[in-house]
Order: sequence, then structure tokens, then C-alpha cells
Amino acid sequence: MTTIRDVAARAGVSVATVSRVLNGSGYVGKDTEIRVKKAIQELNYRPNTVARSLANRKTGTIAVILPDIMNPFFSELARAVEDTARDGGFTVIFCNSDDLGTREQHYIEVLRQKYIDGIIFASNSMGEDDIVYMNENRIPIVVLDRAPGKSGCTVIRSQNAAGAVMAVRHLMETGCRKIAHIAGPGELITAQERLRGYRKAVKGFTWFDESLIVPGHFSIRGGERAVSGLLERHPDVDGIFAGNDLMAIGALKALQRMGRKIPRDISLCGFDGVEMSEWTEPELTTIAQPIYEMGRKAATHLIARIRGKAVKEDILELDVRLVERNSTRRRKN
Amino acid sequence: MTTIRDVAARAGVSVATVSRVLNGSGYVGKDTEIRVKKAIQELNYRPNTVARSLANRKTGTIAVILPDIMNPFFSELARAVEDTARDGGFTVIFCNSDDLGTREQHYIEVLRQKYIDGIIFASNSMGEDDIVYMNENRIPIVVLDRAPGKSGCTVIRSQNAAGAVMAVRHLMETGCRKIAHIAGPGELITAQERLRGYRKAVKGFTWFDESLIVPGHFSIRGGERAVSGLLERHPDVDGIFAGNDLMAIGALKALQRMGRKIPRDISLCGFDGVEMSEWTEPELTTIAQPIYEMGRKAATHLIARIRGKAVKEDILELDVRLVERNSTRRRKN
Repeated sequence: MTTIRDVAARAGVSVATVSRVLNGSGYVGKDTEIRVKKAIQELNYRPNTVARSLANRKTGTIAVILPDIMNPFFSELARAVEDTARDGGFTVIFCNSDDLGTREQHYIEVLRQKYIDGIIFASNSMGEDDIVYMNENRIPIVVLDRAPGKSGCTVIRSQNAAGAVMAVRHLMETGCRKIAHIAGPGELITAQERLRGYRKAVKGFTWFDESLIVPGHFSIRGGERAVSGLLERHPDVDGIFAGNDLMAIGALKALQRMGRKIPRDISLCGFDGVEMSEWTEPELTTIAQPIYEMGRKAATHLIARIRGKAVKEDILELDVRLVERNSTRRRKN
Repeated sequence: MTTIRDVAARAGVSVATVSRVLNGSGYVGKDTEIRVKKAIQELNYRPNTVARSLANRKTGTIAVILPDIMNPFFSELARAVEDTARDGGFTVIFCNSDDLGTREQHYIEVLRQKYIDGIIFASNSMGEDDIVYMNENRIPIVVLDRAPGKSGCTVIRSQNAAGAVMAVRHLMETGCRKIAHIAGPGELITAQERLRGYRKAVKGFTWFDESLIVPGHFSIRGGERAVSGLLERHPDVDGIFAGNDLMAIGALKALQRMGRKIPRDISLCGFDGVEMSEWTEPELTTIAQPIYEMGRKAATHLIARIRGKAVKEDILELDVRLVERNSTRRRKN
């Protein structure tokens, strides 16, 4: 079946341009219009009119694309989005992208066919193209958490770099003299920002070395695996800042198995503030994002856009805060 | 707008019967057919023909209705369903019912309008009516985990009662003399079955008392709250079987806060075998369900039904197994 993408490729224009020609909306140059119409004819492209007749109808459904359904940060976000959407009379469906850009684009297509009123992306790999495409198709979107400062949509995130600085300074203030960082995947903006904050905070200290930064993939297992190599190279590490709580929990388990006492031998600080950070022994010090608030704001903004309210397309960066628990040493008074 | 349910009410028949008349499929008595057609006329009911034309089209999408997106048992199930469905070329969307029957019925309606090829319910409150309704509408379904032995669909679950017996016997064999049970919500079949297993295993012991059974709502907080009252009434409890891992994790935290040593003072056994049961200190002994296998089988059966293969409508009850870890005393050799 010929798709709008085939037409765009044939005519040598963007999908958005084809969509403008089809809808008769927005400015398209005369030459371009002729080329697009020719491509439509040559390829015998038929926009799905059944779908198009339904597409203008509001369905009362919004979709949330999550990168990892097993990460409690995202299930807590999902909880907030759902509560807020339900209060607004909307049904929510969830999709799990596994951080694969190809699957995210696949979901955009599937959801378009399912007449979703709007989409919340907690997604890493959405490109400018996708945002243009959805704007042209008048699908309201809000981007949550893992987004660079792109224009054309509302982005809701928290202060990742500032939070990382806060974590490292807390470890220093409570007596740590050599602080390592377990970092998330390099392609994720949140991981990049937290690493940037770590670098900023340790800059200029003579003990700092690049090999104090180890990858932990934002997962428990990744955190577990990260510590053994780290402590072999740097047996004198006495503080670890993990880029999320899952990695911190994994690191805690591995350190305890190695016979290290937390926080006596090594202090440990996570990032996110998921509920689960309270279930470990000792409980985890962490940089808490306002997870529920982020989900609530995302749903509120999306619903406002669906209802046609003029919402400023903006980046909302919410504050994080240090939650001191027993995995870091007590401050000296 | 008039719905099929209004027609059914007016004609005094079931939705399934109206659906049979509309589709001209299945047996309907002549009198009944006349009554239904009269009701359709009187109410000026128009089945959504646009939707109906799409309804016969396969969309390559299946939906999973989960009762609690925050419970890792269900996110692990979701993971398995998604992996299997993707291998079969299907996209999966998730809905969170919060164990509310009203929301489950709402989802059935919404999903029908969205042309889903099939639904997996990990749901408590689906009635016989709903199953008949979906069968009549030719929406393949598979019921996972929380289902009584209803006919008309494939049910996949594990040996809840036998697993509970296994848990209590293990606690006895490792020296416990007074064993309490933190139970899940009374309306959930899994909680009922696990309670039944506990009762069976403790039957006839002179120490048993009804007040050894305390509610924990299948949540961490519920497990936390359950123990204080329990230990006030029964300070000599030396073993606890929690009906799921979340409640066991909550109980563990509360007991440690009260200064009780696990397993020296009290042994603790959970149920489910979620990954998270390995993250506590001590790690949790648990009755592990084959979670991944349950999700995989559910997806496989559903896809077979979507593809029109003759699948026996059956109850698959999978084995559970005891995973011994440090939260229970060592067996005496």
C-alpha cells in the first residue's frame, strides 16, 4: 500500500508538505504543489478517507509512549498522567518503546490510525521530523523527561545537571574524598546532563580521573556490574553518585556482597526519588525529581492543547531536591 | 447516541443477542429477532458502519489490560507479552484498570472502537457477560492470572493454593512454630487461593488463630502496616507468609524498623518471584510463578486465536516453585 511517505519521497518533499497539499492548509509553493499532485497520481495514492473522516472526531483517548515499562520512574510517571487524564475525562493507553527510535515511529503511525487525541512522549529518540509531522497532522504532543530543548512542542523535564552537582556536593560535604559516577546510556539526554553535572562538580580536584566514570545502563544489573571493575581500579573510592536509583540499588547490592559497609566504607547517592529507593537497607539518599508533578503537568498541558487552548510551547524545567537517607554519611555539624 | 446496550435493554435481551441479530450470525429465535428489530427501529439505532467496516480488518495490535501498573509482577508480565507479540508482528498497547470493574468495561468499549485484534486481561472483575460480549463481537481474548475457571476463553494462571501450602510447609520445616499470613484483597481470586492454601497448611495446629490472618492489600505499604498490629496481638509469631512479594518487602522493612532480625527472630516468605525480591537485604525467600512463561503463553494463545487457529479454550495452570533465600532460616540437615 502506498503511504504518504512514499508520495513525499517521490515528490522530493517532506511528509509535512504532502500533508499540507492534501489538507489544503498552510502555504505550499505552486511548483511544489504540482509535483506533489503528480506523485499522488503516479503512485495512485489514496489517503484513507474512512480514517480521515474519523480523524477529526475527538476520541477521548491519549497515548503515553514510555521508554521502559520496567523502570519504576516511568510507572510512577504513568500513574500521575493517568490520574490527571481521568479527572479530565480521558482514557489513557500506554506503549513501551524500549528506547528504540524505530519503534517510536512505528507507534506514531499506529496511534494515528487509532484516532488518538494526543500523545505524551517520555522518549529519547524523537527527531525534529517527528515533531513537524505531528504538528502538521494536528496531533497535540507533550514531551516528557528525555527531551532536548526542541521547539514546536511543550517539554517537561527536571534539573538534571543541577541535581547531579547537588549529589556530588552532598557526598563531599559528608566527607567523601574520591567520588565515582555510574552513568546512564550516553545517547540519553538525561544521562548526558547528569554526567555533565558530575563533571562540573569534580572539575579541578586532583583525585579526579576519567576512569571514575563507569557505564551502568540505567538498570539494576548495570549498577551491579559497574562496581566491581570500578573498585579494582580505584579501591579508595569512598563515594558513588549513580545516575538513577535503579543503578544505585544494583551498586548497593554488589557492594554489600563484596563486604563493603554502606555508608561507613562507601557513601551512595542515586537520582530520581522512586518509591523503591526507600525499600533498601540502608535506605537510599537520592536526588528526587517531582515525578508525580511532571506527569500531572504533562497531562494538563496535553489536554489543554487537545481542547484547542493556546498553550505556550515551552520548556518547563522543574526543581529537584536532595533527599538525605542512610546510604550517605551524616553531615558534620 | 443510542448504543447496542440500549437496544438490548429495550428488547429485554442480552447484548450478545442483539449482536447476533445485527451480524446475522448464530441462532436467534424468530420472536426474539422481531423484538430486537422493533427495538432497533424504535430507538433509531444505527450501528456505526464506518467502525464496522474497519472492524473486520486486522490491525496488528493487541491490548493488555493490567490491574496495577505499579506492581512489578504485572510489568514483568507485560515485558513477556510484548516480546512475544513483537516476534509475531504485533504491536501492544497497555491499559491500567486499577482493579476497577467499571474501568475494565470502559476499556473494552474503547478498544473495540480502536480496532484491536485481541485483548489479554490480567483482570479481576471481568464477568461472564463480558466474555460472551467479546465472543459475540469476535474479539479474541485470553485471561491471565486473576481469573476464576470461566468457560469461553483461555485462562492462564499458576498454582496459587499449592504454592501457599509450599510456603507454609517450608516455614515449618525450617523451624517456625507460629506462622501468620498477610493476605491480599479478598475480592481477588489469587488472594483467595493463597489464603485457602495457608488455611489448608495450618489446619489442625493448636497455635492457629484467625487473628493470624491480616490484610495487606497486595502493596508495600499494606505489608508495612500489617505487621505492627499482628505483632502486638501475637508477639511470638516466628514466621510470616505474605501473599505477594510487595507485601513481604513492606513487612521486612517494618520488622527491621522494629528491631527484629530476619530470619533470626522471624522468617519471611513472599509469593510471585519478582526480580525485586532479590534486592532486599536479606534477599527474600519466595514462591516463584513462571511470570515470563505466563506472559509468553498468553500472547502465543491470543495470536493463534487472532489468526483463526482452533485453540482449545482451556485453563492452563502453571507450576510454581520455592526459591530459598536468606529471609527464611536454613533447613536443618
